[in-house]
Amino acid sequence: MAGDDHGAVHNHAGRIEALRRLVAERGADAILVVHPANLFYLCGFAGSAGALAVTADEADFYTDTRYGIEAPATVRGAQVHIARKGIIAEAAGRLGRRKQRVGYEAGHTSVEQQERTARAAGAKVSWAATSGVVEELRMVKESGELEEMRAAGRVATEVYEEVMPLVRPGMKESDLAAEVEYRMRRKGASGAAFATIIASGERSALPHARASGKVVKKSELVVMDLGAILRGYSSDITRTVYVGRAPARIRGWYRAVLEAQEAARDALRAGMAAGRVDEAARRVLRKKRLERYFVHSTGHGLGLEVHEEPKLGRGAKQRLRAGCVVTIEPGIYVEGTGGIRIEDDFLVGEGEAEKLTRGTGELVEL
Amino acid sequence: MAGDDHGAVHNHAGRIEALRRLVAERGADAILVVHPANLFYLCGFAGSAGALAVTADEADFYTDTRYGIEAPATVRGAQVHIARKGIIAEAAGRLGRRKQRVGYEAGHTSVEQQERTARAAGAKVSWAATSGVVEELRMVKESGELEEMRAAGRVATEVYEEVMPLVRPGMKESDLAAEVEYRMRRKGASGAAFATIIASGERSALPHARASGKVVKKSELVVMDLGAILRGYSSDITRTVYVGRAPARIRGWYRAVLEAQEAARDALRAGMAAGRVDEAARRVLRKKRLERYFVHSTGHGLGLEVHEEPKLGRGAKQRLRAGCVVTIEPGIYVEGTGGIRIEDDFLVGEGEAEKLTRGTGELVEL
Repeated sequence: MAGDDHGAVHNHAGRIEALRRLVAERGADAILVVHPANLFYLCGFAGSAGALAVTADEADFYTDTRYGIEAPATVRGAQVHIARKGIIAEAAGRLGRRKQRVGYEAGHTSVEQQERTARAAGAKVSWAATSGVVEELRMVKESGELEEMRAAGRVATEVYEEVMPLVRPGMKESDLAAEVEYRMRRKGASGAAFATIIASGERSALPHARASGKVVKKSELVVMDLGAILRGYSSDITRTVYVGRAPARIRGWYRAVLEAQEAARDALRAGMAAGRVDEAARRVLRKKRLERYFVHSTGHGLGLEVHEEPKLGRGAKQRLRAGCVVTIEPGIYVEGTGGIRIEDDFLVGEGEAEKLTRGTGELVEL
Repeated sequence: MAGDDHGAVHNHAGRIEALRRLVAERGADAILVVHPANLFYLCGFAGSAGALAVTADEADFYTDTRYGIEAPATVRGAQVHIARKGIIAEAAGRLGRRKQRVGYEAGHTSVEQQERTARAAGAKVSWAATSGVVEELRMVKESGELEEMRAAGRVATEVYEEVMPLVRPGMKESDLAAEVEYRMRRKGASGAAFATIIASGERSALPHARASGKVVKKSELVVMDLGAILRGYSSDITRTVYVGRAPARIRGWYRAVLEAQEAARDALRAGMAAGRVDEAARRVLRKKRLERYFVHSTGHGLGLEVHEEPKLGRGAKQRLRAGCVVTIEPGIYVEGTGGIRIEDDFLVGEGEAEKLTRGTGELVEL
């Protein structure tokens, strides 16, 4: 439709074909996909309510009357049905016409919804939990997707660089968040990938503190965690600055977190177990007796969702593959003092990982 | 924690007590709550991952180490546990110590998660789907909640009034969205309640069109649908303007939609079935032979979520109660021409509904 922003061309039909192979490997004849990010990936639907039924020879997409004009114009690789009696009722009803084993997204389907779905399909269908099949495809990014992700990374980096000079005593955290989100939009983002975190002083010790009405003061750490969505794909970066001249202890902490990030980046390559990347960051902080302040995982996959596969967590056995995009974001959080986190986005390859965001060096003192 | 914005005081302990009564009425001994909006309502936790187990004599809240500092400082009415072995594992493990029947949120719990939960609890616990119990409490707003919702309504109205003069030929939809979201933040909102819709020309016929890179032109309808979150509570308004002098046909459509909204508002009072409010709006459009262009429901409940109970849809039997807050938002969408939607937020009472957003009169021509 005129006015929509077209980015890279995506091979939706190819993705649906690849999905068919995975579904068959799991012993199912068909799959019913309902998770919005998976629907966008498979057929380009960007709305909030839809279902895609993929059988060996058909791909049928169902949505409701609110998308009656939009869906036929944007959905690719599947036949569009505008359901008047309910999306699930119609999708499951059609699947129920033949005796078959249908996979479903057990991690994205509520108990209530699955009961409704099974009722609508009737006795011919047997259901198989096929969790994570679309996520497995999404984990390895295609070149068109990487194009979008590099652009999303650029937007986040540029926004941070523009907003950093505004961080000064007297600025409200929420006003800084307003500046961040405004600039993302003006640079073409369709929105923020998550609620922008601006956390100053003691609040910077809260890993997930949203921007509040608190005013930034002198001699405070300020953690800024922000990301932009560009044509569906997210970026996610964190920078930490100090307002004033940082004490030696803070500079030492900062250097430790930066070293932890570098160690994880060095470990990041195809074939490596995800948990070993986490361990590389953790080991640096352990040696400096800071491990107990590192209260989360080292990173996570990034793409159509801001948290996706693979997770770089303690002991994770999953092997990284070339084409995965992940964050690396070690941090330490000291109650009553503050926190430091440094986060960039990386593309996993056979050799050194490609950084999708422009990096940070020594601690910035404002 | 210093810097957080404190608004109205909420009676979390009273809500948990009320929940106990509803759970007992459903024949369960306890309930495990996991839906973020329900957790915020019951105990003030504003994070993304937690679980609240309410038994006859205890209320235990579980979250992970990322919230190790924040949760003890913000959670009210429940004992806080920082789970190191997984939130669900610890919450369900503790419930599993005694033989009991535990309710769970079957509409908010994935099949996979419920299987994990049941395994962690073990054989002593039998599970009962108790969908909608917290939602039932949330449906009737307390005075403190209404205070926040009136403020959220004011922010949305003011933002619209400030942005309306910027709507002119040459403005990009996405730049208008940037202005909307920036102003919300500056007025104290923690963010937009949903992706701001700015849809001009043919795109205004898509009820859920997000702001795109399209430029606004002369002789176009522009639909603007926006909402602010204030201390957790959402507002949701839609205004439609015409760029230039509107043809008589467009003005007639606009008047029809406005009349439909007024008819629904007149029908909106405690005791009325939700479907009759929908029918009041629909009847006006039917008489003007515009009903087939009205492709969605008349409105929905509003509060901690932007879509909650009660739904004002065709044939809905649920009775409205004093203290419900709902949107009324009839619209018509004509492919190839454009759309018109008018949406305000109302508090249901015994008499005439209170409008929480400042209304609109005749079509604004810019």
